[in-house]
Amino acid sequence: MVEFSDTDLAGLMHFANFFRFVESAEHAFFRSLGLRVHTADGTAQQGWPRLEVSCQYHRPARFEQTLEICLRVEEVRTSSLRYGFWILAEGEKPRSALATGSFTIVHVALDTVSHTIRKAPIPAAVHAKLVRLAAPPPAST
Amino acid sequence: MVEFSDTDLAGLMHFANFFRFVESAEHAFFRSLGLRVHTADGTAQQGWPRLEVSCQYHRPARFEQTLEICLRVEEVRTSSLRYGFWILAEGEKPRSALATGSFTIVHVALDTVSHTIRKAPIPAAVHAKLVRLAAPPPAST
Amino acid sequence: MVEFSDTDLAGLMHFANFFRFVESAEHAFFRSLGLRVHTADGTAQQGWPRLEVSCQYHRPARFEQTLEICLRVEEVRTSSLRYGFWILAEGEKPRSALATGSFTIVHVALDTVSHTIRKAPIPAAVHAKLVRLAAPPPAST
Amino acid sequence: MVEFSDTDLAGLMHFANFFRFVESAEHAFFRSLGLRVHTADGTAQQGWPRLEVSCQYHRPARFEQTLEICLRVEEVRTSSLRYGFWILAEGEKPRSALATGSFTIVHVALDTVSHTIRKAPIPAAVHAKLVRLAAPPPAST
Repeated sequence: MVEFSDTDLAGLMHFANFFRFVESAEHAFFRSLGLRVHTADGTAQQGWPRLEVSCQYHRPARFEQTLEICLRVEEVRTSSLRYGFWILAEGEKPRSALATGSFTIVHVALDTVSHTIRKAPIPAAVHAKLVRLAAPPPAST
Repeated sequence: MVEFSDTDLAGLMHFANFFRFVESAEHAFFRSLGLRVHTADGTAQQGWPRLEVSCQYHRPARFEQTLEICLRVEEVRTSSLRYGFWILAEGEKPRSALATGSFTIVHVALDTVSHTIRKAPIPAAVHAKLVRLAAPPPAST
Repeated sequence: MVEFSDTDLAGLMHFANFFRFVESAEHAFFRSLGLRVHTADGTAQQGWPRLEVSCQYHRPARFEQTLEICLRVEEVRTSSLRYGFWILAEGEKPRSALATGSFTIVHVALDTVSHTIRKAPIPAAVHAKLVRLAAPPPAST
Repeated sequence: MVEFSDTDLAGLMHFANFFRFVESAEHAFFRSLGLRVHTADGTAQQGWPRLEVSCQYHRPARFEQTLEICLRVEEVRTSSLRYGFWILAEGEKPRSALATGSFTIVHVALDTVSHTIRKAPIPAAVHAKLVRLAAPPPAST
């Protein structure tokens, strides 16, 4: 639901908050696969920072509107993943989405002592789950 | 400056906050031209919502790091404007930007009673100022 | 649920975000009474800004933790309302709350043309509903 | 400066964002003393989480308004610190503050492996600096 603190003085959800909704849906998607989006073992962390994000805004989202976020895995590579998203007003069809876009995220190992971050291959079991879910982008959108 | 509240548990600036920094730079740019990004005359407002935004993340931004945001007007149309941005660590060169991307924003008239939003041509004087500042995208980046 | 974007580099929910959770619970409470926390009729708006808020932090909230927010109406005056809140980890008891505090909010009429804001008595029907729900603060906490 | 993303649909700065401004001022204050508000040595971190915060809202803050944040150290204990704050419109006097309040913060050692957080005495040199700056609360406010 779009909360009061998500809006701005134009009376609509602030554009940057759409990204928070998409990220929350992504993390719920990871949980639905039995995965954690961020793990820490001492100073060694694994996570999924963003490489590239984009969003097209079609219609505004308003205070107290319930939103549905649809994700579709579009490409799975050795250490990165691209998915498309559709932000819908509750009960609406994807073709009338309020906003659409895509995220490319990358699996990394991050050391909190040395402050190094490097790409890390997606573990095989996770990779297999993601590939099974991947759908090609639609022929025309 | 990257504030504590801009970071997340990975110890770095949260990706959505880069957009807030860019928007603040855009509004400072409008002020530098003697323009307001949002005006209200009773229930009739004029503003510049986002049509499309994208960001590529090259390196993380860290707590207490001072950032420089560079904007370049790339295309001015009847009612919309596209600009590119470069987010730099203070004193760094654009080619080592932490993040790059572009925003397409649209000039609209918004009525807060009827909740209608419609594209509105950029006023001629503003349009002329923006065109004068527009630079073509670089040949190679 | 505590989302990734709610955390900060200490690995815990940022303290200011507790207030967003409380405000969301307040608005859900208003909806449960059939009320809207913010209404607009042309340039005349009615709303409930905050007069005073406080929060005591007892234990941190962590990423992906589900929180329960309990509110108790403690005092209803002509145009203001004070309520206490308890932020609990799911399934925990109020006496082991992660955070507690109170909000005093005031009913106002706000004119978006003249930019005036003035206290406005709580409408009688709303006032009656709130009074019926009010509980005195506990004898000892 | 109050940015667009700091406002909400009432057209004013959202109440929770006042806390972000105060926290930023606190961290600038720590830097002015040559101190860091958060340090990490491997998995052992030291930081200053909030024990208690409060804010009284007197007048709204508006988009593009420049704010001044004044802090006054009011009490320094073995491991905690309480300071008062005044949020002023640029050039205004403290007695016409937009908002006032206080923060009690506590020095802690935090282990990111074991997820333990415990109070830690403020280092003697820091304690001495803070005590020297402490002022008693004003006789009447």
